[in-house]
Amino acid sequence: MARITVDYFSAALMRTTTLDVILPVDNVGDAMALDYNLRHNNQSAQDAPYPVRKGPFKTLFLLHGITGNHTDFISETRIRALAEDHNLAVIMPSGYNAFYLDQPETHNYYGRFVGQELVEVARAMFPLSQRREDTFIGGVSMGAYGALRNGLNYCENFGAIISLSSAMVVEGFDRIISDDLFFLSRPFLESTFGDLNHVVDSDKDPGRLAADIVYCDRPRPRVFMAIGNQDPLAPANRYLADRMRGTGIDVTYREMNGGHDWHLWNEALQQAIDWLPL
Amino acid sequence: MARITVDYFSAALMRTTTLDVILPVDNVGDAMALDYNLRHNNQSAQDAPYPVRKGPFKTLFLLHGITGNHTDFISETRIRALAEDHNLAVIMPSGYNAFYLDQPETHNYYGRFVGQELVEVARAMFPLSQRREDTFIGGVSMGAYGALRNGLNYCENFGAIISLSSAMVVEGFDRIISDDLFFLSRPFLESTFGDLNHVVDSDKDPGRLAADIVYCDRPRPRVFMAIGNQDPLAPANRYLADRMRGTGIDVTYREMNGGHDWHLWNEALQQAIDWLPL
Amino acid sequence: MARITVDYFSAALMRTTTLDVILPVDNVGDAMALDYNLRHNNQSAQDAPYPVRKGPFKTLFLLHGITGNHTDFISETRIRALAEDHNLAVIMPSGYNAFYLDQPETHNYYGRFVGQELVEVARAMFPLSQRREDTFIGGVSMGAYGALRNGLNYCENFGAIISLSSAMVVEGFDRIISDDLFFLSRPFLESTFGDLNHVVDSDKDPGRLAADIVYCDRPRPRVFMAIGNQDPLAPANRYLADRMRGTGIDVTYREMNGGHDWHLWNEALQQAIDWLPL
Amino acid sequence: MARITVDYFSAALMRTTTLDVILPVDNVGDAMALDYNLRHNNQSAQDAPYPVRKGPFKTLFLLHGITGNHTDFISETRIRALAEDHNLAVIMPSGYNAFYLDQPETHNYYGRFVGQELVEVARAMFPLSQRREDTFIGGVSMGAYGALRNGLNYCENFGAIISLSSAMVVEGFDRIISDDLFFLSRPFLESTFGDLNHVVDSDKDPGRLAADIVYCDRPRPRVFMAIGNQDPLAPANRYLADRMRGTGIDVTYREMNGGHDWHLWNEALQQAIDWLPL
Repeated sequence: MARITVDYFSAALMRTTTLDVILPVDNVGDAMALDYNLRHNNQSAQDAPYPVRKGPFKTLFLLHGITGNHTDFISETRIRALAEDHNLAVIMPSGYNAFYLDQPETHNYYGRFVGQELVEVARAMFPLSQRREDTFIGGVSMGAYGALRNGLNYCENFGAIISLSSAMVVEGFDRIISDDLFFLSRPFLESTFGDLNHVVDSDKDPGRLAADIVYCDRPRPRVFMAIGNQDPLAPANRYLADRMRGTGIDVTYREMNGGHDWHLWNEALQQAIDWLPL
Repeated sequence: MARITVDYFSAALMRTTTLDVILPVDNVGDAMALDYNLRHNNQSAQDAPYPVRKGPFKTLFLLHGITGNHTDFISETRIRALAEDHNLAVIMPSGYNAFYLDQPETHNYYGRFVGQELVEVARAMFPLSQRREDTFIGGVSMGAYGALRNGLNYCENFGAIISLSSAMVVEGFDRIISDDLFFLSRPFLESTFGDLNHVVDSDKDPGRLAADIVYCDRPRPRVFMAIGNQDPLAPANRYLADRMRGTGIDVTYREMNGGHDWHLWNEALQQAIDWLPL
Repeated sequence: MARITVDYFSAALMRTTTLDVILPVDNVGDAMALDYNLRHNNQSAQDAPYPVRKGPFKTLFLLHGITGNHTDFISETRIRALAEDHNLAVIMPSGYNAFYLDQPETHNYYGRFVGQELVEVARAMFPLSQRREDTFIGGVSMGAYGALRNGLNYCENFGAIISLSSAMVVEGFDRIISDDLFFLSRPFLESTFGDLNHVVDSDKDPGRLAADIVYCDRPRPRVFMAIGNQDPLAPANRYLADRMRGTGIDVTYREMNGGHDWHLWNEALQQAIDWLPL
Repeated sequence: MARITVDYFSAALMRTTTLDVILPVDNVGDAMALDYNLRHNNQSAQDAPYPVRKGPFKTLFLLHGITGNHTDFISETRIRALAEDHNLAVIMPSGYNAFYLDQPETHNYYGRFVGQELVEVARAMFPLSQRREDTFIGGVSMGAYGALRNGLNYCENFGAIISLSSAMVVEGFDRIISDDLFFLSRPFLESTFGDLNHVVDSDKDPGRLAADIVYCDRPRPRVFMAIGNQDPLAPANRYLADRMRGTGIDVTYREMNGGHDWHLWNEALQQAIDWLPL
């Protein structure tokens, strides 16, 4: 299971950005089995083929939450083992606390970055499947929002969306403004989401994007949502699941025992990957 | 010459950010010389001390230009060899196209990040000198502006400033607005520098910061400026050098043969490091 | 929780080698609490101290098993979260399938590397405690053997040893030679351990090293051993635990439900870190 | 110019090993030109294609010298800029002071690793040309020896070989044994090259491999050799160049002003890449 770190120049961000990547080209078990056979048959490795697994691989684009970066999933979850078990490539970008939304003034098109550019660039770098059906986007917390928003907005690219404990799917942004956390302050929310009175029903509202996809007969990604039953974000997630289902999107929604933390996400990630068509 | 990559949570940015670091604790020559002596004296390495170089090390904080990130200097210059020759630690952060200026709305305090936090955090991570006289900040292009601005604004932290081909030290921002490059567009410049009519003489104007330092009798960093004679930014740099000198700051200013590129910066970096009190 | 990758020139190996390091200088919770207070008191961050945690830190040197490298623990366990909870620095070197034993012919002194040099170099790079009582060595499988052997051989450096599922602590090497796996073949074992008839009671035998320490009145590291009850290595580990206890070493020995894999090691690592004097 | 670090499980080494890779999929100039056009035509980036460069790329496998590792070329040369100028992929493995020769006892098949496995694995990971004519191997000092030996031994894989200041191409190994340097000691040389009386004319002798290739009518890589005129290895390199030419191999041989160091290799690398059929 190759573990890869990439620094590349992103045209969507106009700067070099860093990715972590998991690519299932190598496998210890394959190599050991080959070695076992060679030894027991008194053969030399010289003529044996190398046990390389070749693509095209199914691919999950996986987005971290607020305060994190591209290294989060490898440090905090067992994504490497999960990906190996399922022969899955995983692409993990950095999100810069920006909720994976475009910021045109500073030419930081974070939405295009994860929804469009990264798909093209990752396919140009690695042997990934070019098929929408084999391409998935997911994330935790801020990254779950990013996966819902960009998975739906760029629905031609993604066959499935994984949302674990999505943040910011609220119906009324004015209700959550607070001085408790920097990302709940009015200046932060306005510079990230724009006019807070017009987020609902905009292209930053996953519920609206789902309705538009169905209305315009664009490809419909399947959606997996999970959240902890002790997470204050649970009601808003449940409401969004119902809303998307109402439009005709296929939504699997699970409330699990737990809160808003890596313990829950480790378990939920396993369930989500089992749910993917792998 | 240890080469180090760090992911740490920055309180100034409220997210995990990545640094490249060079630390002169190890030295191939030292190890070879020890090994030579042991071999020629029939001694075992068992009882020999390890050839580890101990700090506190003098330190250069080194800032990349627009479109780059923390990996630029190691890829594009021979900074590792230069640092080894001078027993110098080098800390290279990522600047996110933000000109190393604070963006309070999104809690991206890039100025505080490189001018204050990074100094404290790097000293808490590595065996660096705590003395202002041993602590330097430098950069190329956007990073040169960042070094001038933050080296002067946080003059209690830095004994010397290196500016190679500084961008954005212009007297009239309105003259440079253009559609040729994203970072010359009005929206970019306004979201980065604020009201463009009030940049001159603000705390984003190195000339003004230099005057304030002298006026308020704060510590005066020495300044090294270099620029290519074919660089369109040369007149503005020359003007700034004169202006800072006029306030009483010690400025070394050199125009070198060349343009705005890594060829010039490789040579200029060598001259700048020779100029440092090492 | 800073995550760090280091390439440095090792005099013990006469080449550049790579480490992963975890250093508890930063903390998201500290930063959020400070930000909360500032916001609720209408204060600026400008004058607030940065929430940097300063050493000297207690330190665990952590050794991977056969087929792995320095990246194993971060990918396969939640060591980063465990270290953060306990304010512990963790140093993870690469072991090159060599069982952390010296190979003088090729100047690969893997034993000295992890037992002596790395302790000195890591303390020269990072703010680690210089005290034996605060310095620990541990590992899984091949790395557990490396921790036992080098923790005992360099007992002046380590206050505690963690052995999870130690390999190669057998009493008779001739019984394990096989063509099933490359590291059980006679050539591999001989080039790694030397004459197989003389490993027992040599300085590659943890039981003998334990006896020598007590006999020579050298410092006695405390030992934590864990192994799966379905692991074929369990009897040999149990026997070694008894043997070391018999010499007067303080040994905690646990058989846990499970086999020879990361599931068990994740749980055992948590127990081991709880057992450390942190 | 994407810069990539890979940890993958090598079946030839039976352990995880680390590579640095340069991949020309991205290009700042392309992105700037696209952005310029969009701005001047009042178009949105929304519908523009991303400026991604697609393979299959010509590829250089590049081997470091003694005491180094996979990070050497990026730190010490401007390989990233050179590769960008020529649209060339570069794969840089670690060589572990082993002269890129097989060590069967410990299952460290370093020769197969760089000569065969890495070619297959790199092609399975990245969009590289599958053609021999587009695949090159080169190196400096120990790595130059590794490139000559393995480029010739696996001549079906490589169309060209670059040797900069090759070490260990001597005709009589007994003449170089010395206590001055660890890698000139008899134990090191014997454990690396085997019986020193039988290296000449063995499959570890590039001159002999060249003769065999021609005799057996296998594909003939073209060879570029450069060396400093102050390098004590110059006569042996000149002799080898003549010997290979005598067999019918196409050899370009240059003596440059300089010694055995990165200054010469930086310049020689540029000449070598200009010489490649790019």
